[in-house]
Amino acid sequence: MKIKRSLVFFILGVSGVGKSTIGNLLSKEFSIPFFDGDDYHSEKNKIKMANGLSLNDEDRHEWLIHLNELAHKQLEQNSCIIACSGLKDKYRDLLSKGIQTHVKWILLFGNYDQILERLKQRKGHFMPTSLLKSQFEIFEDPIEALKINVGNSPRKIIEIIKEEYTNKSEFGLIGLGVMGKSLSRNLAANNFTLSLFNRHINGVEENVAYNFKNEFPELENALAFDDLKAFINALQRPRKIMIMVNAGDPVDEVLDNLIPLLSKNDIIIDGGNAHYKDTERRIKILQKHQFYFIGAGVSGGEEGALNGPSIMPSGNKQVYKLVQPFLEIIAAKDKNGNPCCVYMGNGGSGHFVKMVHNGIEYAEMQLLAEVYFLLKQLGNNPDEIAAFLESWSNSNNSYLLNITIEILRKKEGNGWLIDRVLDTSESKGTGYWATVAMAELGVPSTMIPTALFARYISSFKNERIEMSKAYGVKTSNSIIDNEDLIKAYQLARIVNHHQGFKLLYQASLSNNWNLNLSEIARIWTNGCIIRSTLMEEVSSIFKEHTNVLLDEKIIVLVKEFKPSLNKIVAQCVLEEIPIPCLSEAINYLNAFSVAKCSANLIQAQRDYFGAHLYKRIDDPSGKNYHTHWKNKSYD
Amino acid sequence: MKIKRSLVFFILGVSGVGKSTIGNLLSKEFSIPFFDGDDYHSEKNKIKMANGLSLNDEDRHEWLIHLNELAHKQLEQNSCIIACSGLKDKYRDLLSKGIQTHVKWILLFGNYDQILERLKQRKGHFMPTSLLKSQFEIFEDPIEALKINVGNSPRKIIEIIKEEYTNKSEFGLIGLGVMGKSLSRNLAANNFTLSLFNRHINGVEENVAYNFKNEFPELENALAFDDLKAFINALQRPRKIMIMVNAGDPVDEVLDNLIPLLSKNDIIIDGGNAHYKDTERRIKILQKHQFYFIGAGVSGGEEGALNGPSIMPSGNKQVYKLVQPFLEIIAAKDKNGNPCCVYMGNGGSGHFVKMVHNGIEYAEMQLLAEVYFLLKQLGNNPDEIAAFLESWSNSNNSYLLNITIEILRKKEGNGWLIDRVLDTSESKGTGYWATVAMAELGVPSTMIPTALFARYISSFKNERIEMSKAYGVKTSNSIIDNEDLIKAYQLARIVNHHQGFKLLYQASLSNNWNLNLSEIARIWTNGCIIRSTLMEEVSSIFKEHTNVLLDEKIIVLVKEFKPSLNKIVAQCVLEEIPIPCLSEAINYLNAFSVAKCSANLIQAQRDYFGAHLYKRIDDPSGKNYHTHWKNKSYD
Repeated sequence: MKIKRSLVFFILGVSGVGKSTIGNLLSKEFSIPFFDGDDYHSEKNKIKMANGLSLNDEDRHEWLIHLNELAHKQLEQNSCIIACSGLKDKYRDLLSKGIQTHVKWILLFGNYDQILERLKQRKGHFMPTSLLKSQFEIFEDPIEALKINVGNSPRKIIEIIKEEYTNKSEFGLIGLGVMGKSLSRNLAANNFTLSLFNRHINGVEENVAYNFKNEFPELENALAFDDLKAFINALQRPRKIMIMVNAGDPVDEVLDNLIPLLSKNDIIIDGGNAHYKDTERRIKILQKHQFYFIGAGVSGGEEGALNGPSIMPSGNKQVYKLVQPFLEIIAAKDKNGNPCCVYMGNGGSGHFVKMVHNGIEYAEMQLLAEVYFLLKQLGNNPDEIAAFLESWSNSNNSYLLNITIEILRKKEGNGWLIDRVLDTSESKGTGYWATVAMAELGVPSTMIPTALFARYISSFKNERIEMSKAYGVKTSNSIIDNEDLIKAYQLARIVNHHQGFKLLYQASLSNNWNLNLSEIARIWTNGCIIRSTLMEEVSSIFKEHTNVLLDEKIIVLVKEFKPSLNKIVAQCVLEEIPIPCLSEAINYLNAFSVAKCSANLIQAQRDYFGAHLYKRIDDPSGKNYHTHWKNKSYD
Repeated sequence: MKIKRSLVFFILGVSGVGKSTIGNLLSKEFSIPFFDGDDYHSEKNKIKMANGLSLNDEDRHEWLIHLNELAHKQLEQNSCIIACSGLKDKYRDLLSKGIQTHVKWILLFGNYDQILERLKQRKGHFMPTSLLKSQFEIFEDPIEALKINVGNSPRKIIEIIKEEYTNKSEFGLIGLGVMGKSLSRNLAANNFTLSLFNRHINGVEENVAYNFKNEFPELENALAFDDLKAFINALQRPRKIMIMVNAGDPVDEVLDNLIPLLSKNDIIIDGGNAHYKDTERRIKILQKHQFYFIGAGVSGGEEGALNGPSIMPSGNKQVYKLVQPFLEIIAAKDKNGNPCCVYMGNGGSGHFVKMVHNGIEYAEMQLLAEVYFLLKQLGNNPDEIAAFLESWSNSNNSYLLNITIEILRKKEGNGWLIDRVLDTSESKGTGYWATVAMAELGVPSTMIPTALFARYISSFKNERIEMSKAYGVKTSNSIIDNEDLIKAYQLARIVNHHQGFKLLYQASLSNNWNLNLSEIARIWTNGCIIRSTLMEEVSSIFKEHTNVLLDEKIIVLVKEFKPSLNKIVAQCVLEEIPIPCLSEAINYLNAFSVAKCSANLIQAQRDYFGAHLYKRIDDPSGKNYHTHWKNKSYD
């Protein structure tokens, strides 16, 4: 038999479980070399153990490094088997360092009395039975391992292992829509063995997985299913299953179907645009069954999913390590070659971050739409607008700018396709969620709702037509200065990024997520929809700041750009051209940099009519005051 | 014994239940006259019934009118008792017309066989037993009545009635905070008999109801409780209990405590600022127990609650009629003397309307804060700003304008109190809810969130100070034209009202509430925080339009005011003075009156990166299209 790609099988377990016996048998079965970790102990360690002393972490460190080097070396040629107790998480981290995607863990286990009995029957082994107790004490159950009870005969154990690693896949994927298919091809292209599942609906979704597998050569080794139980049985344990179905009820339906079929420690990854609170709810549901749930935001659309998306995973950090190799390999790479995938935090933080990503995206798209509309109102055709935008690519390069240029240039017949597209825009939920989140958390990330509401206004097409009849069509003959417009656009983007990250920052504080803003910006520099040169800058700014607008270089830029944004917005206001997001950028900046604002009047009004109390600037204790404001009460 | 105020007791029930017997006994007990309705039938009706024919609605109409006139006449002197079958809701509506607050209903009931037996034993009565069946058939169980089984002895029945109307109150109130106390005094001042309840918390809330009752002479006849069971037993059935506790969990706690103590058909009115979805949930919970729940938004603050608030009730319409007399009497009156209280619709519509009321209020307050801030930045002191605003009162009178003037003039020592109030504003939930509601429903009522977010920005006081250090303090030497400013303010208010009512309109469509926008505006013309001359105009516009901005007079005003709003906003933008709500009014107006907007680009972008499809302007079928936008795919 043959292993499908180069792997290292670490056989784990306390002394006496039979690691060497199984290692030797497996070596024959798989025709790959076996190395007994005990042979790589230093003399010092061997003497220590022979004297009945436990090895400490320091003693083991060098040994584990040796074994890791051994594994690296063997992988250059082929697969191998290494026996090593590997009792703690950090030992296993050392063993698998740099080769995570190639490691399979097999734990041989039994209870203390069972193992003690085996040890007593053993001869010539240098380890005194007195050390067994300490091994049991420090043992950290590896969630990452295939677990086999030593009560099984060696023959049976070998059969279990053989079945697991020759007939089963490493990674499962449920839901073969646009994104699910692209991610599957991406995983397969990276040599992971896959099981693919898509539900069967008569006449609607039939043989989806089979047909998909047959369509693409990279899926040759993949297994295709429309029977969920068979799919589950075809996965190595602990199972790693990514769900790519529509957010909302479909995810819960899939989980309901999966729960009776899973085994302890199996891991479900939701790669859809779930609401972060749903993800937190699902983590708890799976926890009850001793399963794990990882929420992973995935951005990049169809193309990103295929060639490398940006991935934002969250949940239990130790569990995340098991799926990390898969996600990191398929992710886009940043300019330094590091994966655009990094652990966000616990709970639903990954999906929260993805939601904010989409919120920022809403505003970025709206800013481009405003620039487009303004230039169109001034009499430019789509090609002229595209040329205009192309001249910005150096200072303001971004994926969205580039696709906008391509869109504007797309011809249909004698005209431009963009002129034939209906001007009512839709939204699928994340912009709305981001708006509710900022409103709920009290964070004024105002450009997201402004962009969302611009879409809403667009959807009232009939009313807009009625209104335009009542109020007349506007035309403009103004000249816009290109330099002013690009500066205005750049500044609005800075404010948008500031606001988006402010929402992440405040949410992280509220939820104890400990989000790393700089890393989040870094994984958004490639693969995702909002990748841009600005995102690169933002990533480095967040190494030192939590508020982009207080970075020295940004302060200089803002001061330089502000007069242009002021000028453009004032001009549009006077010419009656709607520029909600550009305008909001200004109002936010102005309001956010006023030390003493007008909220004292609001507080006084609230206290006047509702006795809602107010605080005073001359009482730093924060005490609440109430006043009978009515003059007649006092006069 | 004595009845506390003039009442008409209608004794209801099919023929043979003993209405006359009970009426006569009660007449002696209460020392008030008794009238047997049967004596007021026309000869025609009497002959019809003697011939074994049923009376139809037309036959009964004149008779019921007579009895209603009789009741009116008697009430001028004192109380009385009238026996009348009153089998249908609409008969009882006729009987109580114009005297709803003075009517008490007593239903004598038994099953068909029980009553038939009684009728057979009766002599000299003109009604043949053959008509009994038809009476049972048309009978509509009156939820408004005290119900007594005729199996009880006449003595027992009289005791039950006596106990109910001499020792028990008509209306109960739970929660004696600022609003609860004011509403209680308002109800008592209108001669309703009250039971008052406030919970007991050792050392925190002790003897609240007792102390309150003793503080105000109008509460002389009120009963005070801190024992909920005793409070419930001291209310006439069906009980009418208004809850005035903090929105959220406290309401559910009160309901949990009440449910085991209530009887069938009892009515709970929530007068707090509940979320409308909570109200809908609570309606269903109470329904299961055969109780009723009325959500009633109440606006006007402490003073309004005492002297006449604006009230927005919703729920089961038939049930509402039972509490209508109480709510209408305590409500403010509009300029024609009609109560500022009207049935909104079913479900939680009342609380939804109140939420939107508060949303409009947020933006109205913010607009005044912006005007204040602008005038302050131009160097005016609070008295000068007050004088400025006072000059607007003719064209723009409103409660909020008036209290703002009073606030600005409030002195403390040598200065103005407003200058000592901390400029970080708070919010209690309704503005946030309104924002979530508009976002959820897809309605661009953007000035509400803009006002909410302005409060959020104010709350980041420390960051604002840091920002102002980094970006410098702005000063202005401009001159603002008073006429421009008032026009700008007026137009922004028109847009705000348009948007608020648009939210109501769209929510009404989505929820089948059938809201009457004109009536809603009418009940907001007095008693509530957003009462104003503009609201009067809006109320009359909504008799003909659903969109204020399409009213001919408004179109003229908008066209007149728009250049001023443009000018003020452009000036503030150039001078870096934050005016988020004024600015939003413009952007909304501009976006909402563009027939062809920029959303085509958004749709193209979404289709480019996410294959989200788009519609075409040249295909009215609404079909979805997808394009491979990338040039390289085509070139």
